[in-house]
Amino acid sequence: MGFSEFTSGLLENAVNEFASLPGIGRKTAFRMVMNLLKRDPADIKRFGDTISKLHNEIRYCKSCHSISDTEICSICSDSKRDQSVICVVENIQDVMTIENTGQFNGTYHVLGGIISPVDGIGPADLKIDSLEERVRSNSVAEIILALSTTMEGDTTNFYLYKKLSRYNVLITTLARGVAIGDELEYTDEITLGRAIKNRNPYQV
Amino acid sequence: MGFSEFTSGLLENAVNEFASLPGIGRKTAFRMVMNLLKRDPADIKRFGDTISKLHNEIRYCKSCHSISDTEICSICSDSKRDQSVICVVENIQDVMTIENTGQFNGTYHVLGGIISPVDGIGPADLKIDSLEERVRSNSVAEIILALSTTMEGDTTNFYLYKKLSRYNVLITTLARGVAIGDELEYTDEITLGRAIKNRNPYQV
Repeated sequence: MGFSEFTSGLLENAVNEFASLPGIGRKTAFRMVMNLLKRDPADIKRFGDTISKLHNEIRYCKSCHSISDTEICSICSDSKRDQSVICVVENIQDVMTIENTGQFNGTYHVLGGIISPVDGIGPADLKIDSLEERVRSNSVAEIILALSTTMEGDTTNFYLYKKLSRYNVLITTLARGVAIGDELEYTDEITLGRAIKNRNPYQV
Repeated sequence: MGFSEFTSGLLENAVNEFASLPGIGRKTAFRMVMNLLKRDPADIKRFGDTISKLHNEIRYCKSCHSISDTEICSICSDSKRDQSVICVVENIQDVMTIENTGQFNGTYHVLGGIISPVDGIGPADLKIDSLEERVRSNSVAEIILALSTTMEGDTTNFYLYKKLSRYNVLITTLARGVAIGDELEYTDEITLGRAIKNRNPYQV
């Protein structure tokens, strides 16, 4: 059940905007607007201005296509990071997910999607040319393919491998195996099969 | 796990704003911002402007204190509604919930809360004086007390009853009983006890 009766058009507009967000129903949207209305006017204004700014001021790094406040993002312009390693990811979320592991000190390249004929997404729709350009013009030692382990991810990996293997660059992928915390009983056979094949020396 | 690393301060601000909403974590907030970024610039701007407008343009009806675009809301100024019946509710959500039933054709009075000593909310913090003023100055025939069935709700009901019973007005409350769709086995004893005591003739 949602709300269909509003005593205010402005309130209705605000609820409609929040309800347009993914996973937000009209009741939740209403609760959000009510929460905003209880705040200081200055806080509400800052919230609105921040969203309005998004369309004017958000930029994408010219090198890796991640979101950036500057022409070249803070990772691509950081001399303390290994600029010779490029981790290829599908989207900006993945950049942050990997950054949060604290295990990676190279740079990224955001494709903006993966090859998916069903959705009509081909190689030309992705930032593949600019990746090739980065490999060609800079001294890149390694490309890490960090795409989803789906059919589309594998297709994209293969396409990128074909395209980039002509350059003098090491192409790697993320290790596949049994996830930490997973029970063997519930691990799918393909993952388990690969994990046995690619077993590692036991480390104490 | 939340995101702690951002390549853009503006993105981080936007995520923080959404994450300040009730029930929204940082990952969900991030997904919301990403969803906005995929939209038309005009759509993003309208979203932001709608929120900014809230603090300038939202008004409350001078009579019933519900949200309104005008000085007197569309319900209080509607001559087709029974202006002699006032349904007293805790907040604006409750107005809409009752409106959505389509079963009520009177007016409302939004208290803005209920008496709750624990939270430091006393009668003076609620719109009780203006309710009394409405009863005194207009020809009000009935006051429906539609507050929560909690201890605070009962306390407020009792306070309002004491205050308003001196006027020539019928004071009623919502019917209490077993909710439609509820199984008897899982209905609490107090509700069930009241439902038996206040049983109604069976209607075919």
